[in-house]
Amino acid sequence: MPLVREIVVFSGSAHPALADSICTHLGVPRSYVDMTRFSNDCLQAQLLANCRQRDVYLVQPLVPPTQDHLMELLLMIDAARGASAERITAVIPYFAYARSDKKDASRISLGGRLVADLLAAAGVHRVITMALHAPQVHGFFSTPVDHLTAIGELAEYFRSRDDLSDSVIVSPDFGNAKTAQQFARLLGLPVAAGSKKRISDDKVVIDTIVGDVDGKRAIVLDDEIATGGSVVELLDRLAERGCTSADIACTHGLFVGPAVERLSGHPLIGEVVTTDTVPTPANWPQLHVRSVAALFAEAIARIHAGESVSSLFDGVDPSHAPPAAKLPFG
Amino acid sequence: MPLVREIVVFSGSAHPALADSICTHLGVPRSYVDMTRFSNDCLQAQLLANCRQRDVYLVQPLVPPTQDHLMELLLMIDAARGASAERITAVIPYFAYARSDKKDASRISLGGRLVADLLAAAGVHRVITMALHAPQVHGFFSTPVDHLTAIGELAEYFRSRDDLSDSVIVSPDFGNAKTAQQFARLLGLPVAAGSKKRISDDKVVIDTIVGDVDGKRAIVLDDEIATGGSVVELLDRLAERGCTSADIACTHGLFVGPAVERLSGHPLIGEVVTTDTVPTPANWPQLHVRSVAALFAEAIARIHAGESVSSLFDGVDPSHAPPAAKLPFG
Amino acid sequence: MPLVREIVVFSGSAHPALADSICTHLGVPRSYVDMTRFSNDCLQAQLLANCRQRDVYLVQPLVPPTQDHLMELLLMIDAARGASAERITAVIPYFAYARSDKKDASRISLGGRLVADLLAAAGVHRVITMALHAPQVHGFFSTPVDHLTAIGELAEYFRSRDDLSDSVIVSPDFGNAKTAQQFARLLGLPVAAGSKKRISDDKVVIDTIVGDVDGKRAIVLDDEIATGGSVVELLDRLAERGCTSADIACTHGLFVGPAVERLSGHPLIGEVVTTDTVPTPANWPQLHVRSVAALFAEAIARIHAGESVSSLFDGVDPSHAPPAAKLPFG
Amino acid sequence: MPLVREIVVFSGSAHPALADSICTHLGVPRSYVDMTRFSNDCLQAQLLANCRQRDVYLVQPLVPPTQDHLMELLLMIDAARGASAERITAVIPYFAYARSDKKDASRISLGGRLVADLLAAAGVHRVITMALHAPQVHGFFSTPVDHLTAIGELAEYFRSRDDLSDSVIVSPDFGNAKTAQQFARLLGLPVAAGSKKRISDDKVVIDTIVGDVDGKRAIVLDDEIATGGSVVELLDRLAERGCTSADIACTHGLFVGPAVERLSGHPLIGEVVTTDTVPTPANWPQLHVRSVAALFAEAIARIHAGESVSSLFDGVDPSHAPPAAKLPFG
Amino acid sequence: MPLVREIVVFSGSAHPALADSICTHLGVPRSYVDMTRFSNDCLQAQLLANCRQRDVYLVQPLVPPTQDHLMELLLMIDAARGASAERITAVIPYFAYARSDKKDASRISLGGRLVADLLAAAGVHRVITMALHAPQVHGFFSTPVDHLTAIGELAEYFRSRDDLSDSVIVSPDFGNAKTAQQFARLLGLPVAAGSKKRISDDKVVIDTIVGDVDGKRAIVLDDEIATGGSVVELLDRLAERGCTSADIACTHGLFVGPAVERLSGHPLIGEVVTTDTVPTPANWPQLHVRSVAALFAEAIARIHAGESVSSLFDGVDPSHAPPAAKLPFG
Amino acid sequence: MPLVREIVVFSGSAHPALADSICTHLGVPRSYVDMTRFSNDCLQAQLLANCRQRDVYLVQPLVPPTQDHLMELLLMIDAARGASAERITAVIPYFAYARSDKKDASRISLGGRLVADLLAAAGVHRVITMALHAPQVHGFFSTPVDHLTAIGELAEYFRSRDDLSDSVIVSPDFGNAKTAQQFARLLGLPVAAGSKKRISDDKVVIDTIVGDVDGKRAIVLDDEIATGGSVVELLDRLAERGCTSADIACTHGLFVGPAVERLSGHPLIGEVVTTDTVPTPANWPQLHVRSVAALFAEAIARIHAGESVSSLFDGVDPSHAPPAAKLPFG
Repeated sequence: MPLVREIVVFSGSAHPALADSICTHLGVPRSYVDMTRFSNDCLQAQLLANCRQRDVYLVQPLVPPTQDHLMELLLMIDAARGASAERITAVIPYFAYARSDKKDASRISLGGRLVADLLAAAGVHRVITMALHAPQVHGFFSTPVDHLTAIGELAEYFRSRDDLSDSVIVSPDFGNAKTAQQFARLLGLPVAAGSKKRISDDKVVIDTIVGDVDGKRAIVLDDEIATGGSVVELLDRLAERGCTSADIACTHGLFVGPAVERLSGHPLIGEVVTTDTVPTPANWPQLHVRSVAALFAEAIARIHAGESVSSLFDGVDPSHAPPAAKLPFG
Repeated sequence: MPLVREIVVFSGSAHPALADSICTHLGVPRSYVDMTRFSNDCLQAQLLANCRQRDVYLVQPLVPPTQDHLMELLLMIDAARGASAERITAVIPYFAYARSDKKDASRISLGGRLVADLLAAAGVHRVITMALHAPQVHGFFSTPVDHLTAIGELAEYFRSRDDLSDSVIVSPDFGNAKTAQQFARLLGLPVAAGSKKRISDDKVVIDTIVGDVDGKRAIVLDDEIATGGSVVELLDRLAERGCTSADIACTHGLFVGPAVERLSGHPLIGEVVTTDTVPTPANWPQLHVRSVAALFAEAIARIHAGESVSSLFDGVDPSHAPPAAKLPFG
Repeated sequence: MPLVREIVVFSGSAHPALADSICTHLGVPRSYVDMTRFSNDCLQAQLLANCRQRDVYLVQPLVPPTQDHLMELLLMIDAARGASAERITAVIPYFAYARSDKKDASRISLGGRLVADLLAAAGVHRVITMALHAPQVHGFFSTPVDHLTAIGELAEYFRSRDDLSDSVIVSPDFGNAKTAQQFARLLGLPVAAGSKKRISDDKVVIDTIVGDVDGKRAIVLDDEIATGGSVVELLDRLAERGCTSADIACTHGLFVGPAVERLSGHPLIGEVVTTDTVPTPANWPQLHVRSVAALFAEAIARIHAGESVSSLFDGVDPSHAPPAAKLPFG
Repeated sequence: MPLVREIVVFSGSAHPALADSICTHLGVPRSYVDMTRFSNDCLQAQLLANCRQRDVYLVQPLVPPTQDHLMELLLMIDAARGASAERITAVIPYFAYARSDKKDASRISLGGRLVADLLAAAGVHRVITMALHAPQVHGFFSTPVDHLTAIGELAEYFRSRDDLSDSVIVSPDFGNAKTAQQFARLLGLPVAAGSKKRISDDKVVIDTIVGDVDGKRAIVLDDEIATGGSVVELLDRLAERGCTSADIACTHGLFVGPAVERLSGHPLIGEVVTTDTVPTPANWPQLHVRSVAALFAEAIARIHAGESVSSLFDGVDPSHAPPAAKLPFG
Repeated sequence: MPLVREIVVFSGSAHPALADSICTHLGVPRSYVDMTRFSNDCLQAQLLANCRQRDVYLVQPLVPPTQDHLMELLLMIDAARGASAERITAVIPYFAYARSDKKDASRISLGGRLVADLLAAAGVHRVITMALHAPQVHGFFSTPVDHLTAIGELAEYFRSRDDLSDSVIVSPDFGNAKTAQQFARLLGLPVAAGSKKRISDDKVVIDTIVGDVDGKRAIVLDDEIATGGSVVELLDRLAERGCTSADIACTHGLFVGPAVERLSGHPLIGEVVTTDTVPTPANWPQLHVRSVAALFAEAIARIHAGESVSSLFDGVDPSHAPPAAKLPFG
Repeated sequence: MPLVREIVVFSGSAHPALADSICTHLGVPRSYVDMTRFSNDCLQAQLLANCRQRDVYLVQPLVPPTQDHLMELLLMIDAARGASAERITAVIPYFAYARSDKKDASRISLGGRLVADLLAAAGVHRVITMALHAPQVHGFFSTPVDHLTAIGELAEYFRSRDDLSDSVIVSPDFGNAKTAQQFARLLGLPVAAGSKKRISDDKVVIDTIVGDVDGKRAIVLDDEIATGGSVVELLDRLAERGCTSADIACTHGLFVGPAVERLSGHPLIGEVVTTDTVPTPANWPQLHVRSVAALFAEAIARIHAGESVSSLFDGVDPSHAPPAAKLPFG
């Protein structure tokens, strides 16, 4: 039997703990990478395990320093290709450049599409990612993409609560409200959304909340929280509208800069729930981290075995479900 | 001086009237295409004007029969390439496949990206389009795209009214509410949005309206209206919520099947305003068509002369405006 | 054993009966496709069976409405690619655009090459087809092509006759006469050919027959019959030259428009023999349909098993035979 | 005016006399190439004139030693690309690999398509060629092709004769008879064709002539003559059928090996007319060479100036003529 | 005259002073880029000048932080492509990844080729660079490369000295000795070279000097100095071999980490001469910086005007000189 | 088990003896190719064994006539692709065009990169080669390359000698001295190198030897010897410097033209050791040929089985060894 295609998993330096956790779930050892930084700051990747005809997975969320982590990933792909990997899958739990998904000013770069093209140029065959900022970003890739969702994981956290009856799901803005609606239905809750307004070139405010939040406990859902500026702005509006408390749920909890301080000090704040797609801050009592390592491991195992990945999300996310595409959009 | 690069404009069979109107604005004659349908239903395009080193524009909105119009466009691109056109620009005022912009069920095709790739495979160098269903669709193209907007034209229609003080802009769903916000700001009006809910596999309802519409005159803004089902559903909800009347504004007024009957017969209906990106129904007194031919002609003239297209939209659409990209999104 | 690569067969809407027949011969169930037509006439394909690492076959002859069937095929390929099919084979028993195989006028499209490129852009890995209008069309594809022939099937029909001694094979024109020669040799018969002449821009006549047909029974062989115009023209000439009767044999029996009426009413007509590469007319007593489903199934089975496909045609078609390429062409 | 795009013409070693002649007609000097053959037999091309932003033409028919001439051409293209040529046109008056245009045995190479792809890989932007063995070969190229014809030149030679009334155009085989028909119409003559039969693996005979040749003067038309074997075979058959004499006309007169001896010694032979697409034998009194240098020069001049090339052939070759593509092919 | 192709020059954040200097020499204003760093560390480029049909130059040496500067460059290319630039030239005076030019261990990345491919994927049309670590790196690019040299500039500095009679050019290792030979010939001096030896996995020593250096003044030539480790090692050996003093010349003077301290404190050190391809340390009296801005400006001007760039280096670098490629290499 | 991927080995006409030897080591029969040369000098390849889903290896060193052998290889690749080979590996023991690895004059072709691109255009998936002229040439290929070395084989020959104590390894020039250093370390010997100087446009001399050779026995190591001119020049210098004898070791022993005569007649000459990457001269007593067939066979077997190829060279060549890439290059 000449063709053996074992799973080999490598991790860049962005989040080795997640890679380890995925490997534990898969029951395979993590293979190592020797990542060299030369004195002119160039990087070089050497894969320390045989890749020939292997089914190679490279785990690297694009967290800060984003450019270094991206280049590490591109170099690992290049090395795997040169080492005759049969199939190279980039596991990018957090695809940061997804936020650069449209031309919202003239002559700007479209980073989401560019990075998708760079990955293809380096030689990737497939991408596994989670909670892209917009679902259309899927279409930026010329390779197959397995687009996972964490809202089932996040919903499970809240479902275990005693009482959700006076809660409302709140989306920070209209543009992303569809996922909030999905999340709300999983929990059987109503939904509200903030309406953003541009004050000047470098200032955005949320000027209104559409939907009823008075006297309710808000569960704010966002795909990603970086400095937390938008969320704090939203919490202020929710407070003004009579909200009694606010929990935060997000897939990608970057919490950079003043985020932890801002959020933990806000009078409305309850719990903050996120996942481990990115490394999360230590020593923050309000923070609860749900691991998505098992989800990624299961997806990898199914891909490797040629089984359906979408059925992983039956009952969670209709966009992964079978035959339900018949809705006319006229 | 060996290099002459005159503009040559051809039209497929989808909407020659728009092509004629663009040509009139440009001050160039329209060149003709001999489109042959063979007895086995295959199409063949012959361009009846010299294309060598010319700056060729092919006008074709993707209206029904969509597949025939798409194939006509691909064949015209192929013929122009074979005839040594210097630059081939597909002018697709209505890019119908933009609605297939995400994987919202497992194993479905992603028509928006596919058609963008087919155009590139045929040899197109540039695309000019208007009001893509989602701004991210821009990123599906590997060629430069000039993405025009008609909301300036539509807003101008309403701005000429006596009194807008009790009006509200309404978006049929959360997902597209950002353009509605832009439109609302051009007119200085508040915004509301419907919240869609999936009843079963083949039925969607709008179960609630977020935002205040009671006693107001609604201006419903959508990018595209086909059978009008969603809009009528929205009008019913608006009526229940106390709206006094509703005008409709949309860029792409397909109005297929029962659309005209449904809309003209609705008790709430006022005016229906659209553009000529697609051929529009005749003999419908409520319908007002604003031509975008001058916008397309101006864009073509600027492209040909190497001038800025984005400045066409100063004060209308911030996504075409100069240096305003500094908003942090954390 | 991680790598399973079962055969999965889907059919577009062009000719599901043929797909069913192929599946029966293969002993695999046909998998289903949910083909949605949206109200703006855009199509969407959803594959209702797991494709991961499968050996996927998509059956779709390009019969009218040709553009819709082509787009269905492209969307199915796109969906299979996105669903991580290991290998995607388009089974196109009738590749209609093969007739657009040369630039016979200035600035015309070259549909045959264009469609081959579109299939590659969508992501196909291999094509199986039959009786391309010209053998050179094989070279339009950048993917491997398995080019089957039906002349063995057609010859077998006539071989079962009592007496072929006064028969002659007739090709409607010089350009395709090589296949007629091959067919004639399988049956041990002489060959004749019509000589086409262009009368005006939209009129072609057959002005002469080269070869002896007087007092003979003609067997007219063509690759494809659409409206039957050329064949009827040929029958008239054959009658004038003293032919006593004429049977018709063709691989692709489209018989569109007036074809059945024209042919069945011609005084010279005997039998019409064709295959099921395309759906054939019902209730036409003169028509005999030989199925090529077994040939396609056998080809698929051999491809899947890594066996030779060309040996399927030993003794039938020298272009599929082993080592016989040494003829100098000077 | 920063953009100057002068014509620069280089020649490989295959046929510098033709390149000189083309340059004379164009009124530009020929630029030189330093072609080095290293001691390991590798070739290297150095272009001895500035190519930056120039409109570069590389003249090289693929005559024997074919592989060396092909590699010279590929290296010149590579050098021109590296030297920043604005546009690189390969002028290949004789595209020898066009004869490898179909898979007429299993597992054979398809040289015509391969060489077209190699030229594209090297960086060519356009090809000018003449009398491709089959018109479908045009579709093997992904770049624009200007496909010239010499039959106007060849016809002019015969038109100057006193009397053509008892002449007949003869094609050596059915497959290429279409060009013979065209040629016959230019001269107002009837057409006949040989029918080839394969005797064994390495022997082909012409077993019959379809069409009337008895008592006539034959003008045999072929695209290319190499060893002359097929033509001599045809002449023998023509003699048997009562032909009184035979002239030969061909575009590409390679006349390799025993060709001159065979043809000049045949009892039927009259004149042999060819062109200078390839170097022709000296000291052969029966040979008349019509130069196509002016045709190539005119095509280059028109391409450079952005004028129509097809109109060069008005009245000669309908495949270059305007609007005549309407013939249904059913 | 529709086609205007003015030069537009942008600079990333790596070395704006060099871009300014190039612009001054060119006599064009520098156009600005708004480079945004989002809170998730993603970068976005907005070009603040019209690029349509312009001849766009993007100046960015790949100095530390290398990954950020590379991504800036890729984003600027992407933005220029999307903004319809006619031609995009990356001006990369220091192409840091050129050092990753070979597989000197198993399964390592080949950064030089990868980055060349990334630039192509982003849409660059041409690259201008200087003193690539190895001349073969030129061949990693699929686009034309104008590869400039600074050795003429460096040689001119030393040529102005009173007396070079007892000097010797020293290359730190054999691998790069060819450029040292060229440099030595420009100055009429002999050459010597160090021989490196690998002690252990992370330690290299220069164990010997080949060539005579005793009693001589060394001029050490290297393409790039980062931490200066190798050079100091070489100086130690030169001291042991009786060298009296050592000047340093290099094109790319990065001088990172301990470089300035190490070099300025070495007993043998004389002058350190470098160029401004990268920003250089301030307040280092031994350092002399020769600007290459005029060379880059002249190259850009010639490229824009379609003139020869290689003739810039007549008499300096034979690899840019005319017809001298005839040396057999057997 | 549908997926069988047996090894199938074909040989072009360049060196069938090596292919046979590789097959013997692999224990598989050699499959045959019918290579036809048509009368117009075009080549055609027909593969005489089934390739479907096979792991196909095509053995062809690029020895003279180089262009014919290259075209044979490209046609075999094309035929294997068309015949549905699962993986096509070009085994090119001697990649002659590697010497064209840099632009050492203006407007020259870069044959090394061009040929790598041609192989990719034809459809090759992988290349196995040996002793590329420069290690950077590896980066010219877009496919994976297994780059083998013969210096272990060559060293073993000398290691068996009684006494190496007074020997020195000599490299003909600085540029290639790194391999000589590696070779010297395998044998525990010192190293010296010639310094080439260009006399005029067509004459190179070695004007000096760096390193101590007086009274020593030289072992000259070169990658390739063609006419032997450089080596003889070096031998003359070595004689002048007091060398007592000189053996020659090279991987690619072409020995074309006057090579054998020149070398065998030189007073200094001892033994000449080479490999069978190319066919070697018969009847030359001084010549010792070490076969590398076993190395190629082992590499093919490991590739087929998905095992590490680099470990073949443990202790021989550090560039194939595990984790030793940490040396900073500053």
